[in-house]
Amino acid sequence: MTETVVSSATKTVVIGFERPFCIIGERINPTGRKKLAAEMAAGDFSTVEKDTIAQVEAGAHMLDVNAGIPLADEPAILAKTIQLVQSLTDVPLSIDSSIVAALEAGLAVYKGRPLVNSVTGEEERLESVLPLIKKYDCAVVAISNDETGISEDPDVRFEVAKKIVHRAQDHGIKPCDIVVDPLVMPIGALGNAGTAAFRLIRRLREELKVNTTCGASNVSFGLPNRHGLNAAFLSMACLAGMTSAIMNPLHLEEMQAVMGADVMLGKDEHCRRWLTRFREPAPEGSAAAAAAGARAERGERRRRREATA
Amino acid sequence: MTETVVSSATKTVVIGFERPFCIIGERINPTGRKKLAAEMAAGDFSTVEKDTIAQVEAGAHMLDVNAGIPLADEPAILAKTIQLVQSLTDVPLSIDSSIVAALEAGLAVYKGRPLVNSVTGEEERLESVLPLIKKYDCAVVAISNDETGISEDPDVRFEVAKKIVHRAQDHGIKPCDIVVDPLVMPIGALGNAGTAAFRLIRRLREELKVNTTCGASNVSFGLPNRHGLNAAFLSMACLAGMTSAIMNPLHLEEMQAVMGADVMLGKDEHCRRWLTRFREPAPEGSAAAAAAGARAERGERRRRREATA
Repeated sequence: MTETVVSSATKTVVIGFERPFCIIGERINPTGRKKLAAEMAAGDFSTVEKDTIAQVEAGAHMLDVNAGIPLADEPAILAKTIQLVQSLTDVPLSIDSSIVAALEAGLAVYKGRPLVNSVTGEEERLESVLPLIKKYDCAVVAISNDETGISEDPDVRFEVAKKIVHRAQDHGIKPCDIVVDPLVMPIGALGNAGTAAFRLIRRLREELKVNTTCGASNVSFGLPNRHGLNAAFLSMACLAGMTSAIMNPLHLEEMQAVMGADVMLGKDEHCRRWLTRFREPAPEGSAAAAAAGARAERGERRRRREATA
Repeated sequence: MTETVVSSATKTVVIGFERPFCIIGERINPTGRKKLAAEMAAGDFSTVEKDTIAQVEAGAHMLDVNAGIPLADEPAILAKTIQLVQSLTDVPLSIDSSIVAALEAGLAVYKGRPLVNSVTGEEERLESVLPLIKKYDCAVVAISNDETGISEDPDVRFEVAKKIVHRAQDHGIKPCDIVVDPLVMPIGALGNAGTAAFRLIRRLREELKVNTTCGASNVSFGLPNRHGLNAAFLSMACLAGMTSAIMNPLHLEEMQAVMGADVMLGKDEHCRRWLTRFREPAPEGSAAAAAAGARAERGERRRRREATA
């Protein structure tokens, strides 16, 4: 029963085989968001603030934080963003960068035990990131590609993941602190992207006994009605054994897909989280209606905030 | 590679492990629809007509036809409904009744090779329905309950299904002509309803090598946001190996769930069906826009019909 424990200063989250699916909010990432990139480079963190609050209110259990802005001082901006986000929320963070110096700057200021996103199977990356993971005693996302790129063969990707897990063990890092990203391909380009991902997720769980995560929306790249496809993929990936995803918690269809999968897999006892999120308002005048009114009021405040985001 | 072949006078549909998911429209059923029951009892089939056309236009590959109206002449009404529906559409039908005389009346007028819904593991039902299936050389839905009721244990339900398959073989009916309904329980009442269903679907496919179907919406009975839960269940059931469902094709979320699952499982080559259904309109003035306009026009007519249904 693999469990990956991450935390902020005051809150612990466990990613695990028998745990509810872990939703990692993807929004704090300037990649492909020109306005956000310009703001962050200019020291304006107002969108980061809004994205932090909106994602946590929408149900994110963790937030991914990325500050990859071309020509900017990424280590300094990432550290500053992490400090800001940790001042606004107690959910644990995933520190996301392709620059090792930025990961280190983030780790230096982080309060708690973060997830580091990411290490790959590339020699240079392995030998620069794994010592950091050991030094800071944290968890890491392992992406199943190496110097040869991303194989279309899920069994080759499995071998890359295995190599990372073994190398991590050489560095004194336990498999339970490695969350493998099987790399989900766009199904519009590769017709076997879904079956390959499900097969790989199963093997990672059953043979390597590691937790898994992915950037789920990649599967629908280039196709219409992406939310519908992402939702189908996510529910199926949950059945295959995936335990977390880096995703947008503001998208209802994707949230239904993973929360519904938790219900179906018996991970939402008495359907409590589903009921809390989706229960219809009670008849007017009842005690339940008063409680529902308070909930609706909170929801209205959230919607107003989202509308201005 | 199990294949269940059903047909109308002019169209064949194959339910099979490697085939696209088979959507069986559930709407032509007066159970719980008082207005429809009253209409059908009075010889008014206008709602049946609308439901036939709307379901086929929405993407149903087959239609379930039920005429279970208390105190009415069910055999006569079922036969008349089947004749009417077959005059309106060429999709194959599932003849649905708990009364054997009604099944026989339906079979007598049906053109093609129908699916009969259903036989159970009850002795009396087995020995009255199976001879009909053999006589008319058709396919049958087998429901995994018997005299003792519906077991909560999926392994007991598997044994009931196995008994039905073996008894059918005694009557000269092949396993490929039996589509087993594993009986999906409401997850709000039974927390293991999802895992039990997935386990049973897998065993039915791998050990008994039969196709499967279910009334999918039962899983969400009594819970809010039923479409979201049904969608998660359906996508997951497809990964577990379910090959058809009796469902409402007018519900977008459920349709996305099974069409998306087909994409993910490589059963929608080049995503053609997904693209046809969900493609965004092309820019105005292009040749593609003209074609899209024609499609939209058809959609508008359908929506108008649905609005009056």
